[in-house]
Amino acid sequence: MGGDIGPRVTVPASLQALASNPQLTLLLVGHPDSISPLLAHQDAELLSRLRVIPAYQTVANDAKPSQAIRQSKGTSMRIALELVKDGEAGACVSAGNTGALMGLAKLMLKSIDGIERPALMTVVPNQIKTKTVLLDLGANPQCSSAMLVQFAVMGSVMAEDIAGIKNPRVALLNIGEEETKGPDTIREAAAVLKEMPEINYIGYAEGNELLTGKTDVLVCDGFAGNVTLKTMEGVIRVILSMFKSQNEGKSSSWLYRIVKKVVKKAVTKWLNKRFSHLNPDQYNGASLLGLRGIVIKSHGAANINAFNAAIALAVQTVEKQVPERIAARLAMASPKSN
Amino acid sequence: MGGDIGPRVTVPASLQALASNPQLTLLLVGHPDSISPLLAHQDAELLSRLRVIPAYQTVANDAKPSQAIRQSKGTSMRIALELVKDGEAGACVSAGNTGALMGLAKLMLKSIDGIERPALMTVVPNQIKTKTVLLDLGANPQCSSAMLVQFAVMGSVMAEDIAGIKNPRVALLNIGEEETKGPDTIREAAAVLKEMPEINYIGYAEGNELLTGKTDVLVCDGFAGNVTLKTMEGVIRVILSMFKSQNEGKSSSWLYRIVKKVVKKAVTKWLNKRFSHLNPDQYNGASLLGLRGIVIKSHGAANINAFNAAIALAVQTVEKQVPERIAARLAMASPKSN
Repeated sequence: MGGDIGPRVTVPASLQALASNPQLTLLLVGHPDSISPLLAHQDAELLSRLRVIPAYQTVANDAKPSQAIRQSKGTSMRIALELVKDGEAGACVSAGNTGALMGLAKLMLKSIDGIERPALMTVVPNQIKTKTVLLDLGANPQCSSAMLVQFAVMGSVMAEDIAGIKNPRVALLNIGEEETKGPDTIREAAAVLKEMPEINYIGYAEGNELLTGKTDVLVCDGFAGNVTLKTMEGVIRVILSMFKSQNEGKSSSWLYRIVKKVVKKAVTKWLNKRFSHLNPDQYNGASLLGLRGIVIKSHGAANINAFNAAIALAVQTVEKQVPERIAARLAMASPKSN
Repeated sequence: MGGDIGPRVTVPASLQALASNPQLTLLLVGHPDSISPLLAHQDAELLSRLRVIPAYQTVANDAKPSQAIRQSKGTSMRIALELVKDGEAGACVSAGNTGALMGLAKLMLKSIDGIERPALMTVVPNQIKTKTVLLDLGANPQCSSAMLVQFAVMGSVMAEDIAGIKNPRVALLNIGEEETKGPDTIREAAAVLKEMPEINYIGYAEGNELLTGKTDVLVCDGFAGNVTLKTMEGVIRVILSMFKSQNEGKSSSWLYRIVKKVVKKAVTKWLNKRFSHLNPDQYNGASLLGLRGIVIKSHGAANINAFNAAIALAVQTVEKQVPERIAARLAMASPKSN
C-alpha cells in the first residue's frame, strides 16, 4: 500500500467499500504493522471479508519506472499484481507510482492481442449528465496512429459497458475541427477510424468539448490526455476555492455582513451539490486498459471517498468482464487497426 | 476583415478602441461595402482617426494554410501584414484563419534572429490576481527542445513587459513534476534552461497549475498549449452556463420559488463579477511572438468587447516595443539556446 498517504486512506476506504457491497472480498497488500491498527475494533462481518497479504516494501513515488520494476520483488505493488495474475484477485487497485504500475502490470499481466501498449482511461462526468470516456491519460506520452485507433476501440467498449452508452460517439482530441488540422499521427488515425464500421467515429474535438458531452469517447495521446484532465481538475478546484476563500471586504453594516454570510453558505452548499459530479474526488480511478487483467490506478493523493470510488470502479470492471469484451471487439475489428 | 463574424464585430470594436484611446489611429482593411454602412452617423472625431483600406477578398477560415498563402494576393490579411511590413501600421490584429496568419506573417515579416518559428502567446489571469504567460498556443503543434527554449526567452520578456512581473518564473508544462517525467524534448529543454542565468527556470508544472499562479510563464508545444487553454475556457464556460441554465425543479411554494429566483440572480451577478477576469472574452488576443513586426490573433468568434481587448493588446505591444526587446534578450542569451 503505497501512494502519497498509504494505509491511513486505503484501509478506511476498503472498510467503506466492504460495508457498501456485501458481495465484495478484499485482499489488503501491505505492511501488517501499518494495516492492523487500522482494523482494530471494526465490524467482525466486514473483517471476515478482508485478508491482509503481507508486503514489507513499497515502490517509491519518485522512483524511475525502469528501476522500480527491476527492484520490485517483495513490493506491495508487485504482490498485488501477482494475485491478479494467479487468479486470486479479480482486480488490483493502486494509488502508487503510475509509471511503475503501468510497466509492472504490462510485464506481469501481458497485453491483449492487438494492443501494443495499455492505456489509462477515466470516465469524466459531463454537462449533459452523461459521461465521457477519456484515454490515454499519461501511460503513453507519445502515440502512433495505430495506438490511437486501438484506444478508440477500447474506449468504445468502456463507454458501452461502463457508462452504458449505446453506439458511443468517438472523437480524436485535436487543435481544430477541420480535417486538415493537427499532427500526422492524428490525421492518420482519423483516416483509419472513418473506415471502421464498428466505431462510431465523429471527427475531431477540441479541449473545450471535454465537458460538453459532444462526444462519448475522447481519444488522445497520454501527454494531451494528462494535460486536459489536469487542467479541468485544476480549474474546478480553483473555482471552488475562490468561493470558499472569498474575501469579505470592509462592509460597515453588521446586517449586511450577516446576510452575506448566509448567502455565501447557501452558495457554497449549492456549488458543492452542483459540482459534486465534476469533483475529482467523486470520479477517481483510471483503468489501465488493454491488459489480460484488471488494474485500477487511483490518484496518489486520493482521500477516503475517492479511493472508495476507485474500488467501486474495479468491481464494475470485473463484473462487466472488460478485458474479455475488449479482446472480443479487437478480434472483430478490421485488421487495419493492427 | 475575416473571422467568423467579420466587420459586424470588428468595426464596432474599432470605434470603441478609438473612443477609449485618443492616441490611436486605425486602418480597417476590408471590403468597403461591408465596412462603410457601419461607420455611418458615427462621431466625426473618431472617424478622423480611422481609414478604410480596400481589400476585396478574405482568407477562408477553413482554407489550408499553404493554399491560403499561395492565393493570398489581395486578401485583407495580406494587405494588413503589408502595412506592418512597410511601417504604415504598428501592428496587425486579425480574427482570421490562424494557420494562414502565422504562415503569411512569417513569410512577410520574417523571424527575429535566433527564433526558428514564431509562437502564439496569451496572458491568462490567475487565481492570485497576477497573470500567467502561456505559449505556444497552436502555432507549432510539435516542437524541438531548442524551440521550447526560445519560447521560454520570449515568454520571459512578455511577462516582464506586458504583465509587469520582475524576474518572472518560467516552467515547462509536463505530465509530472519529477525530472524524469515526460518526453525527451521537454527534458532536453529543461537541461538547457537550468543553465541559462537570464531565465528564472523553476522546473515542470502540470495542467492543474495553469490558474494557480505557481509560475509566471508556462512553456509548451502548440498542441499541449491549445489543449490546456481550450480546456480551461471550456470548463469556465460550462460552469457559467450551468448556473445560468439551472433547472428550477418542481417546488410547491411560490415563496420558495421567488426566494430562489432572487438568490439565483444575485449568484449569477456575483459569479460574473468573480470570474470576469477568467472569462475568455476579457483576455482575448494572442500575440504571434518572434517576428520582426507585431501580429495579434483574436479568437475567430470574438465579440465586440473581446476584439477590443485584442486591439488593446496590440497597442500595449507596440508601446513596449516587444519585438525589439525579444531580439535584445536573445542576443544576450547564451548560444545554447540556438
